[in-house]
Amino acid sequence: MGSSREGNDVAQGNLKASQLERVQDLVARRTAGLSLEAPFYTDQDFFDADMKAIFGRHWLFVAVDAEIPEPGDTTTIDFGPYSVIVVRDDDEELRAFHNVCRHRGARLLDAGCAEIGNLVCPYHKWTYNTDGELMHAPAQAPDFDRSSFGLRTVHVRSVAGLIFICLAEEPPADFDEVAAVIEPYFAPHALKGAKLAHRTDLVENGNWKLVLENNRECYHCDGHPELIGAYFPVFAIDDDEDVPPNLRTTYERYRKTLAEMYEVYDRLGLPYEHIREVDTRTTGFRVQRDALDGAGESYTLDGTAACTRTLGDLPEKRLGYLSMHMQPNSWFHVVGDHAITFSALPISPDKTLVRTTWLVHPDAEEGADYDLGAMTKVWTATNDQDAALVARGQQGVTNPAYVPGPYAPSEHQVEAFVNWYITRLEEELKR
Amino acid sequence: MGSSREGNDVAQGNLKASQLERVQDLVARRTAGLSLEAPFYTDQDFFDADMKAIFGRHWLFVAVDAEIPEPGDTTTIDFGPYSVIVVRDDDEELRAFHNVCRHRGARLLDAGCAEIGNLVCPYHKWTYNTDGELMHAPAQAPDFDRSSFGLRTVHVRSVAGLIFICLAEEPPADFDEVAAVIEPYFAPHALKGAKLAHRTDLVENGNWKLVLENNRECYHCDGHPELIGAYFPVFAIDDDEDVPPNLRTTYERYRKTLAEMYEVYDRLGLPYEHIREVDTRTTGFRVQRDALDGAGESYTLDGTAACTRTLGDLPEKRLGYLSMHMQPNSWFHVVGDHAITFSALPISPDKTLVRTTWLVHPDAEEGADYDLGAMTKVWTATNDQDAALVARGQQGVTNPAYVPGPYAPSEHQVEAFVNWYITRLEEELKR
Amino acid sequence: MGSSREGNDVAQGNLKASQLERVQDLVARRTAGLSLEAPFYTDQDFFDADMKAIFGRHWLFVAVDAEIPEPGDTTTIDFGPYSVIVVRDDDEELRAFHNVCRHRGARLLDAGCAEIGNLVCPYHKWTYNTDGELMHAPAQAPDFDRSSFGLRTVHVRSVAGLIFICLAEEPPADFDEVAAVIEPYFAPHALKGAKLAHRTDLVENGNWKLVLENNRECYHCDGHPELIGAYFPVFAIDDDEDVPPNLRTTYERYRKTLAEMYEVYDRLGLPYEHIREVDTRTTGFRVQRDALDGAGESYTLDGTAACTRTLGDLPEKRLGYLSMHMQPNSWFHVVGDHAITFSALPISPDKTLVRTTWLVHPDAEEGADYDLGAMTKVWTATNDQDAALVARGQQGVTNPAYVPGPYAPSEHQVEAFVNWYITRLEEELKR
Repeated sequence: MGSSREGNDVAQGNLKASQLERVQDLVARRTAGLSLEAPFYTDQDFFDADMKAIFGRHWLFVAVDAEIPEPGDTTTIDFGPYSVIVVRDDDEELRAFHNVCRHRGARLLDAGCAEIGNLVCPYHKWTYNTDGELMHAPAQAPDFDRSSFGLRTVHVRSVAGLIFICLAEEPPADFDEVAAVIEPYFAPHALKGAKLAHRTDLVENGNWKLVLENNRECYHCDGHPELIGAYFPVFAIDDDEDVPPNLRTTYERYRKTLAEMYEVYDRLGLPYEHIREVDTRTTGFRVQRDALDGAGESYTLDGTAACTRTLGDLPEKRLGYLSMHMQPNSWFHVVGDHAITFSALPISPDKTLVRTTWLVHPDAEEGADYDLGAMTKVWTATNDQDAALVARGQQGVTNPAYVPGPYAPSEHQVEAFVNWYITRLEEELKR
Repeated sequence: MGSSREGNDVAQGNLKASQLERVQDLVARRTAGLSLEAPFYTDQDFFDADMKAIFGRHWLFVAVDAEIPEPGDTTTIDFGPYSVIVVRDDDEELRAFHNVCRHRGARLLDAGCAEIGNLVCPYHKWTYNTDGELMHAPAQAPDFDRSSFGLRTVHVRSVAGLIFICLAEEPPADFDEVAAVIEPYFAPHALKGAKLAHRTDLVENGNWKLVLENNRECYHCDGHPELIGAYFPVFAIDDDEDVPPNLRTTYERYRKTLAEMYEVYDRLGLPYEHIREVDTRTTGFRVQRDALDGAGESYTLDGTAACTRTLGDLPEKRLGYLSMHMQPNSWFHVVGDHAITFSALPISPDKTLVRTTWLVHPDAEEGADYDLGAMTKVWTATNDQDAALVARGQQGVTNPAYVPGPYAPSEHQVEAFVNWYITRLEEELKR
Repeated sequence: MGSSREGNDVAQGNLKASQLERVQDLVARRTAGLSLEAPFYTDQDFFDADMKAIFGRHWLFVAVDAEIPEPGDTTTIDFGPYSVIVVRDDDEELRAFHNVCRHRGARLLDAGCAEIGNLVCPYHKWTYNTDGELMHAPAQAPDFDRSSFGLRTVHVRSVAGLIFICLAEEPPADFDEVAAVIEPYFAPHALKGAKLAHRTDLVENGNWKLVLENNRECYHCDGHPELIGAYFPVFAIDDDEDVPPNLRTTYERYRKTLAEMYEVYDRLGLPYEHIREVDTRTTGFRVQRDALDGAGESYTLDGTAACTRTLGDLPEKRLGYLSMHMQPNSWFHVVGDHAITFSALPISPDKTLVRTTWLVHPDAEEGADYDLGAMTKVWTATNDQDAALVARGQQGVTNPAYVPGPYAPSEHQVEAFVNWYITRLEEELKR
């Protein structure tokens, strides 16, 4: 009858045999060095496989603590066929539940943030507390056992103010290790207590993997005029020996600025080792600090800080940037005065919601301490530009004339993302 | 070649084996006491099965005589992949036809009401009379046999002014019995000669069974503030021995009013036995009369009649209400001054059109004898509230985390509807 | 790895076995004299088969030379899952390419006309010349072989100013023969150097075959009040012996006008033999000249020319009309003062884009030499009327009550189109 709260692995439903076979064939013949074949991006069978093997199994970044700071605050996140409520309970702990009433299955909360006392189903008033326990179901027979009908739980945890959930009954075991590595990078910026300055939801007309692949390379960054000025134009150079003559001056300026940054990081105790475990573990990630060009303080048009207060009250505002990638669905940028988080939430094979949040010092006041427009301009424009490119990618791979093409050297992170993804599917197919 | 008018069983096309197998599995493992599994509400295979086994086999309430009172009046009803024309022929008899030209298949009439002389196909002017016979097909060879190309017929009959159709070649045999039982309940209200005061079409974002299940219980009626005042708040009480202390006064008032109603019914010769054959026969139904709270005359905010004329010129206007449920797709309410009919017409797995009509005395004039706003306010609001709840139900069962949940005692009619439905699928699977 | 430009037969991907089987069954049991069964018009499997067997194999009319007169002019045509760029290269030759970058598959150009220098992918700036060769791919490793990543080519050719493409690696061999036959009919009207006066895109809510079938008969022409006046109302008469009494006077007037036209054609050297090879060869076509009623010069409300200049500077403007049908997707009308081309481009099983172009003498000036409204009124209205009829046809064949019906004698060209179509599917099924 499935009424127990144990065994709440919603992704355990099996794919149909015909679906599995198609996925298996294309996973088996995937060719390294080339982009994936079209069905991975366009086909409902493959989307179903992704929802099960990737979004049903792995830790997903879905929100920030700053969105739900108080007891009773909730944020409801929809992705693929799922909907998950994250709530801060009366003890200020995070809890997460599937957004489905245990009676006849009505949706409890709409997508977005809300404040609640208890979770009351709008249909027949079944009432759950913030621990997910069924407190009251009107007009039941005397033998009705409320304790069998608590909400189905979802794993949730915050790492330095970033909220991750996992639908699997047994989440990937390596997340503790990863959390321990990344927490020291983010903790000095105090995102947990930060203020949510802005949030945008952008529906991109492309498969979630095209959204991620687009994020994992700057080969296309000529298409981002607002963003490109922030970076030293040397990101394709991996080796000091290998600098093209026309970039030598720029490269020397970059190396000099980077050395200055390292001094700052050492002085402030900010970790900056570049750690790249993108496709070598289940919870793939990459974290680094690097210098920014220009004023070097922030993602603004001239590189100067957009907010007078630094995150974490750090005593310097020129910190370059802290960047993190997390598989399968997120990326992050932190500068001295603000942080930006990005979460890709699949909607259908050809649609993905990209949710972006901007975080600032908790005492910073809009208008007084920061100009929201100046602070959000670069990444809002960049998101819009990326959405147009992703849509063009989706249109192309839908064409029967598409054949997988070769990655350029500077697309090594795209290939690493794809490696990670294919490995996850292989693991799933073995189950 | 299928050109004969015999054998017009359009539902005879078989489901694919893979579809049948899925339906069969879930029908076999259905658990009494719990709501249905998700695919019954969300999956195209199951919708196809419903269209064949339920809407292709059973009598469906689709219209009222008052919509097509004169010869040549038509009403065209779309549901699932079907479209049916109901026409009053030159002898004032009802006829029904599939809305498809026998030439190259063009649709003949748009959905809704129209007046016609003959049925003329807009494409090549093939012309059918109101008996469905092909009268004229332009420019045919001399050996063309018009008599082979009459419109494909659909069974149709009116019971006390309520029009039912059946697509099956052999409709359920028990409809005569049912008609004989219900006709005396409705006849005194003279719906056949009534006037159509209002009609609304509301597309609800849910499977047709969620629409019906919602209708079959008042467990959610706190969500209907306008409606709930009309009823005594004792509808969950089945047994006089079982009245909770806080409702005893109310319950006594209800019993007293009911006794008054029974006197009225006896005096006027109105049958009022509660007959409940919802899941015990092919043409499941339930009919009853009951008291209304407040003024007790009508579905208005204060319970007073909205129309000065009583249906059927009955000499009293305080009659409580006559209620009927018909499987699979309709429900009805009659009060002294007006009647309301509801027909659920599936559109797709997650969309259903609910058509509501309000009927009044044929001589009643809007503005003079009735205020249309006052008369329609309660059920228009109730329909809108139900649509929101049904949509929430559909969203929930689409979530992989949904598991069937337990019916409350007051949801016994929901379960009876589901029992009826599952029995029909079992019969179909045996064919 | 499929990176070679050889073997660019995009239609070679096989249909799934289950798809093939369904198509095979219905092809096998198709009954001559009757319209096709519903799945040919409504079902995604059959649409996929059409895209492969018909639109992936045959020559398709998609554009006119007048749309892309100069080097660097492009027109991009979408149909089904395909998108093809036709470009006039620097040598003024036509080239055609699949609209997909060879890198990670982004779409290169949007639908419609554009002027380009090179073809530059908007994503990562891969740059192709108008011969489709990859000229530049930024930041590649030294061993990257540009020559392996040219655009995938599509066959293209112009016949007397009408542009045809073929996606197949080996196009139908008989196109040269057909081109040799039809070229002399069109050449005197000089469409190659003509001016594009107007172009419309109309999305019809019907399967592409319903669009074509509708075009291939005038049994429905009572529904075209603007058009019908242009033609003698004798088009259903095949035999001089067989004229109904009420049309004898009209028929004699028609024969007299036709004799006058033949004199004109002979005088001007315009071929006018009626050639009908619609279903007797792979590249089915039909070409004829015939008289027009009224002033007999043009498709205007009164039949007088809408433009002061004749196409090809022919010394007479009263030429009746030249008409051509080409399988699978086009039809054409040429009168003394202008030409109209029609191309049907499938979008989905139930949607088809109809693109219409009007061509005039290259020196004709709008306002001075022609009134665009007067010139386009008849066929714009006719297209709109046809769209409504096609939509009604699609609605009807989607109804399970539809059964194939008999063609009237005057629908012989509809049946010939269907014969051609079924023969092509049979050929495909044998492969």
